[in-house]
Amino acid sequence: MSQLLGHNYIGGQRSAQGDIRLHSLDASTGEALPAVFIQATEAEVAAAANAAAAAWPSYRNLPALRRAEFLEAIAEELDALGEDFIATVSRETALPTGRIQGERSRTSNQLRLFGQVLRRGDFYAARIDRAQPERQPLPRVDLRQYRIGVGPVAVFGASNFPLAFSTAGGDTASALAAGCPVVFKAHSGHMATAEWVADAILRAAERSGMPAGVFNMLYGSGVGEWLVQHPAIQAVGFTGSLKGGNALGRLAAARAQPIPVFAEMSSINPVLLLPEALQTRGAAIARELSGSVTLGCGQFCTNPGLILGLRSPAFSAFIEQFKQQMAAQPEQTMLNRGTLANYRKGLQHLHDHPGIQHLAGTSQGQDKAQPQLFQADVSLLLKGDELLQEEIFGPATILIEVEDQAQLFAGIAALRGQLTATLIGEAQELTNWRGLIELLQEKVGRLLINGYPTGVEVSDTMVHGGPYPATSDARGTSVGTLAIDRFLRPVCFQNFADELLPAPLQNANPLGLLRLLDGEFSRAAIS
Amino acid sequence: MSQLLGHNYIGGQRSAQGDIRLHSLDASTGEALPAVFIQATEAEVAAAANAAAAAWPSYRNLPALRRAEFLEAIAEELDALGEDFIATVSRETALPTGRIQGERSRTSNQLRLFGQVLRRGDFYAARIDRAQPERQPLPRVDLRQYRIGVGPVAVFGASNFPLAFSTAGGDTASALAAGCPVVFKAHSGHMATAEWVADAILRAAERSGMPAGVFNMLYGSGVGEWLVQHPAIQAVGFTGSLKGGNALGRLAAARAQPIPVFAEMSSINPVLLLPEALQTRGAAIARELSGSVTLGCGQFCTNPGLILGLRSPAFSAFIEQFKQQMAAQPEQTMLNRGTLANYRKGLQHLHDHPGIQHLAGTSQGQDKAQPQLFQADVSLLLKGDELLQEEIFGPATILIEVEDQAQLFAGIAALRGQLTATLIGEAQELTNWRGLIELLQEKVGRLLINGYPTGVEVSDTMVHGGPYPATSDARGTSVGTLAIDRFLRPVCFQNFADELLPAPLQNANPLGLLRLLDGEFSRAAIS
Repeated sequence: MSQLLGHNYIGGQRSAQGDIRLHSLDASTGEALPAVFIQATEAEVAAAANAAAAAWPSYRNLPALRRAEFLEAIAEELDALGEDFIATVSRETALPTGRIQGERSRTSNQLRLFGQVLRRGDFYAARIDRAQPERQPLPRVDLRQYRIGVGPVAVFGASNFPLAFSTAGGDTASALAAGCPVVFKAHSGHMATAEWVADAILRAAERSGMPAGVFNMLYGSGVGEWLVQHPAIQAVGFTGSLKGGNALGRLAAARAQPIPVFAEMSSINPVLLLPEALQTRGAAIARELSGSVTLGCGQFCTNPGLILGLRSPAFSAFIEQFKQQMAAQPEQTMLNRGTLANYRKGLQHLHDHPGIQHLAGTSQGQDKAQPQLFQADVSLLLKGDELLQEEIFGPATILIEVEDQAQLFAGIAALRGQLTATLIGEAQELTNWRGLIELLQEKVGRLLINGYPTGVEVSDTMVHGGPYPATSDARGTSVGTLAIDRFLRPVCFQNFADELLPAPLQNANPLGLLRLLDGEFSRAAIS
Repeated sequence: MSQLLGHNYIGGQRSAQGDIRLHSLDASTGEALPAVFIQATEAEVAAAANAAAAAWPSYRNLPALRRAEFLEAIAEELDALGEDFIATVSRETALPTGRIQGERSRTSNQLRLFGQVLRRGDFYAARIDRAQPERQPLPRVDLRQYRIGVGPVAVFGASNFPLAFSTAGGDTASALAAGCPVVFKAHSGHMATAEWVADAILRAAERSGMPAGVFNMLYGSGVGEWLVQHPAIQAVGFTGSLKGGNALGRLAAARAQPIPVFAEMSSINPVLLLPEALQTRGAAIARELSGSVTLGCGQFCTNPGLILGLRSPAFSAFIEQFKQQMAAQPEQTMLNRGTLANYRKGLQHLHDHPGIQHLAGTSQGQDKAQPQLFQADVSLLLKGDELLQEEIFGPATILIEVEDQAQLFAGIAALRGQLTATLIGEAQELTNWRGLIELLQEKVGRLLINGYPTGVEVSDTMVHGGPYPATSDARGTSVGTLAIDRFLRPVCFQNFADELLPAPLQNANPLGLLRLLDGEFSRAAIS
């Protein structure tokens, strides 16, 4: 099983028609790993999209319970992967074993959570308005509504979560849950990992009797453009850079049939430190916050990239403590050489900016990433300076001292959309800053109090989304069960005989769903 | 009140800074009506967008009940408009009095229905996952989620529904319900009507204590482009042509911050006539269907533009009956001269096409619209001929005879996305055509059996949407309560003290909402 074939996955078969050979790299050494991956040709991309389209009618029509069993089978297969698998992921990403094991559990539990959603059935959003033949001036006809998948979905995995945001990650899980077959574009940073996981998905598909083509995977750079442009693809899920997400969005909008794209892209995740909290527990905050900034080498979408405080002796004291904490953080190996090069470039831009001062951090070399702390003049924030608004992917963050409350509000207002914002404050002062909570709601997908944004719970309540450029569409999330909504659309049935209706809408309510029945929620069967 | 000022509505004030003077036309005579409307300048468009943005924080934070009262007040004001108003609408649109009165009721009831949604509170989609401090390996923190409006919405009214899809129509009602202030672009076809309705909205806003800027309205052509490009606008609702909707979609995607557009555009609404039904009640179907094709002069988005039947003596007999019915339909005045010119052009394209044959209809003149029936060769459908796929706005329809079931399926598969599809069949034969029902689901927003697609019930269950080009985003609807979803986005609150949470998420459940609490739906308060 550790022998990797390196061929594309198309309709349940392996395919290698191309002649471009790709290698995955050892993340620590930069050396090419032995396995060879064959880049997909344009014809193979089309074949994968068509295989997904061919699987769609039968896959979407499976009872939700069957799709739940499929997702749960993937989870089992993932959990059963052994030491070899963990070693492969670690070698391709430089992530430590414990992190990979934790991310694997998160990924399989995420699949199981979507299984629960499918069993619960609320994703159908079933609604029934019974006929009112006597209504005046016009009778009302029987109308029923539920949701179906949009069709085949193209998914692009992220470099920083080789499991949870990748082959069998949240986008794939939510699309499959919605009844949409997936064509997955493997990330060049962890192609061997992708192959292990794709094999697990295919084993699960086979033993749960899924149609061939329910899951497909392609290797290679540039193949994603063909994929998004293929007419069979009906939606796109993406996690990655602002540049990459924007490019996919433009391609999708320029199609003969435009399709929706959900791209999770760029967020600097502001953290606001309120005065009383700093006074009461500044040292602890400095310690915890430096831990959040450097967690996983700062390679999280929710990494705190901007720290705001009000000018005060307490904030000045905090800055000193935070400098020490950041200076004491160890260097770490990044996901790959490209990521490190980008981090170096990002740091250089900060060093070169006259309004930005370097506060802490060892000089950045060519090898591991050094944690870094900067301080920017508040005017940069108020002017909307680009450098301050762009995510620097790595263990670095920027402090800003604001004069007063008015300037803090103006600074927040100048921020673009974010995945998260965090308030650190004492109970009483938070009550006095209600207006700030309101303003922040307009900017973010998730608002935290006295916590740190790294660490994203996979649950019914999570929002890993937010206004642009955090994502391309603030109405979605890529983590949590609400992610399924991105790939569902409503269909209305008018004047249908009961036996012609899909099960969720039948009178007997065979699935026991909570349905909106004549304007009230009910699990009742109707006659 | 019948004295129209003709100035733009900005932040509760009237404004006329421009020097382009516009006139509304009498739809029947084409003569300019006396009132003058002043086209908005670019600065006025910006002022309107900024007024909406200024109203947003206070408007979105009003209790949902207050917004319900506002919508209900608009409904009351609309219903209170007198004979003068009806006469104005009739003069601008050539629609008969009865239709206008019916449409007014539909519009005010639509506002009241959104009031019910606001009182019901399910639009919040409240979810709570309580903290699990003892969970292993990591504790779970308290997480809660609800939905807020996306921000100011630009709405473009339709020519064919001067009330229900216009100033106080479904897009405006759903945006206002979602907590989003509106900037409405008045349709040039009924500017006087728009002014009457805008005045009604402003009276309602004043007596229900809404912030200035909750509703704004602009006159003029071209001003819509400035509006969609203004940074304060966060979403767009549009009903109109494919060309117009596509243009807005491109503008929205090209913004520095791309925003979602819901455009309802083009649908030919296929009607499939099954053999037994034709045998049993062909004459009745011919009569009913001709009524649906010519209803409201064929100026409905759901007008049946394509009629498919299987080659058989029954279908041949139906064609003869349908020819007679269509030939007997009276001429009607269209909404305006431009609409008539487009209808004439559309008919000419059909006449000129070698694969299309004219079956019935008086020669189309320069005055009123003549109902027309054509028959196209099935090869046009199978080849995806553009002419067959494009909506012809007016009382015309096209028949196609298919050879057999396989050809029928191939023809359906070749269709683009539709608002509706209709099956006319007897009970037993419908059971045998289940596969067709499945295939049609993939193409449409609404599927009807033994009914006609004209006539769109405003309800919880309606879907007035569908895959492109029926709309720009199949995940939405512009009629029915689900329309509110287009303008809502989720926000997650992590580790919030109860008193800092918005009411829908507080422990005591003060709004009595049905909430997803630790994975189960419940109205329970929690401690």
